Amino acid sequence: MSSTIISNITQIRVRYADTDKMQFVYNGMYLTYCEVGRTELLRACGLPYSELERQGFMMPVLEAHIFYKSPAFYDDVLDVKASFDTIPKATLSIEYEFKRGPDIIATGWTMHSFMKAETKKAIRPPTIFIDSVKKFKENLMNQELL
Amino acid sequence: MSSTIISNITQIRVRYADTDKMQFVYNGMYLTYCEVGRTELLRACGLPYSELERQGFMMPVLEAHIFYKSPAFYDDVLDVKASFDTIPKATLSIEYEFKRGPDIIATGWTMHSFMKAETKKAIRPPTIFIDSVKKFKENLMNQELL
Amino acid sequence: MSSTIISNITQIRVRYADTDKMQFVYNGMYLTYCEVGRTELLRACGLPYSELERQGFMMPVLEAHIFYKSPAFYDDVLDVKASFDTIPKATLSIEYEFKRGPDIIATGWTMHSFMKAETKKAIRPPTIFIDSVKKFKENLMNQELL
Amino acid sequence: MSSTIISNITQIRVRYADTDKMQFVYNGMYLTYCEVGRTELLRACGLPYSELERQGFMMPVLEAHIFYKSPAFYDDVLDVKASFDTIPKATLSIEYEFKRGPDIIATGWTMHSFMKAETKKAIRPPTIFIDSVKKFKENLMNQELL
Repeated sequence: MSSTIISNITQIRVRYADTDKMQFVYNGMYLTYCEVGRTELLRACGLPYSELERQGFMMPVLEAHIFYKSPAFYDDVLDVKASFDTIPKATLSIEYEFKRGPDIIATGWTMHSFMKAETKKAIRPPTIFIDSVKKFKENLMNQELL
Repeated sequence: MSSTIISNITQIRVRYADTDKMQFVYNGMYLTYCEVGRTELLRACGLPYSELERQGFMMPVLEAHIFYKSPAFYDDVLDVKASFDTIPKATLSIEYEFKRGPDIIATGWTMHSFMKAETKKAIRPPTIFIDSVKKFKENLMNQELL
Repeated sequence: MSSTIISNITQIRVRYADTDKMQFVYNGMYLTYCEVGRTELLRACGLPYSELERQGFMMPVLEAHIFYKSPAFYDDVLDVKASFDTIPKATLSIEYEFKRGPDIIATGWTMHSFMKAETKKAIRPPTIFIDSVKKFKENLMNQELL
Repeated sequence: MSSTIISNITQIRVRYADTDKMQFVYNGMYLTYCEVGRTELLRACGLPYSELERQGFMMPVLEAHIFYKSPAFYDDVLDVKASFDTIPKATLSIEYEFKRGPDIIATGWTMHSFMKAETKKAIRPPTIFIDSVKKFKENLMNQELL
């Protein structure tokens, strides 16, 4: 089961605010786009990040890496694919791929820890997170068996 | 004493991130620039906004108004003048003027309430705010008398 | 015909990046949200702003006004209604209403001029803009007659 | 001469707009902070990036990497150190270190290509860039000899 990839694709339309005078999307915006991809990935797992926070947990970013392949422009609609492939132990790595149609615009990954909001201490992945991922994987496997 | 104007000028250098594909500073950035002007105005009054929050108070924005006169460009250094002219009753209005050298880039104003952080309820201006403004005005008057 | 209101509603989901330490959406973000509402309004008129720029025209913001009524939070889905009610002469005013379900979060309006991209000079509304608005209004009236 | 490190430290004060509901600086903001560090590094070399663009060159970002060590808070003043240690061949890597007093907040690096603005084609580092770096290094060495 461990090799099943958890992934989700969401769309982002590039805003005027996202561009800079080079006419492209500003390089820093991709970390916001990663956030959107990650948020929708967790929602697809049945555990919106807002719910995770309501339960008292946070997933701060430890590392962020972006590889810019080709510029994105105003009003482009980008497909943002976010995925991870293992149930995390201490940290969770999420991969991203940004595409406009068939063209790869950028790729990247972020690494996260789990933190208790109250104590701001790092913790192991909370049970509700693990359970959501397991349920998502089971659903995926059941669909494949049909 | 009520007619003394409390004002402060601070500098902001336009970042690449602040521009958009029109080559100008993005219109929404001016509200961030207002924030910087306001923050430095309060610091000049001896009451940094961070200190106000530490004391349990907040100054949420009720209204914001910007009048764009002339574009600002990447790497421009703008003089941001923030000012207010009366001790506030329930709300505080702060005026802004953005200049590049002698040229007026934009003007605007924001209106704020005072809020208790704990209860998120509107309150009258807290004593530490009133006292800071009074002290700042007295210092101004003493300087003028010298 | 002049009293027909041109309007469009689009949804925006609040990103983590949009919030600030007050837990609310940062006040400056609403100008970006206005941009999204305006963009989708023009698209609904059959004239995406990106197309207008491709034709050599721009609509810089002359004024922006926001009235904050109630905070918006992370992961909220906001309905952004953008509208204007007259065919513009020299400038175009667009009104905005931000709602979360039945609750009004904010209202506002922006005023725009039309500019030739090449000369950066103010011009009258270009024919393609006027024609798109007229066609949109005719479609609206035809729908009402059915 | 090749081992001389070109570096510059500049200060950034954290704005309210930079924070998010986690109370920390939003992870994506660090790429904007990198931009500020890079801009001031080039200015220290006698070649402001705005001048480089005026001469028809651009330095788009190919990769960005951030390692978050410790949160930064509203109104913090961060020291942003930007540096590079070799005269670039095809690409230029710039390293960053963000500190609040003695505490390391984050580190990172970006990789850039050089591009002709007119053709949007990758080129070798332009002569004005190489010359500025050489002159900066010579000045450094002369200072060390005194």
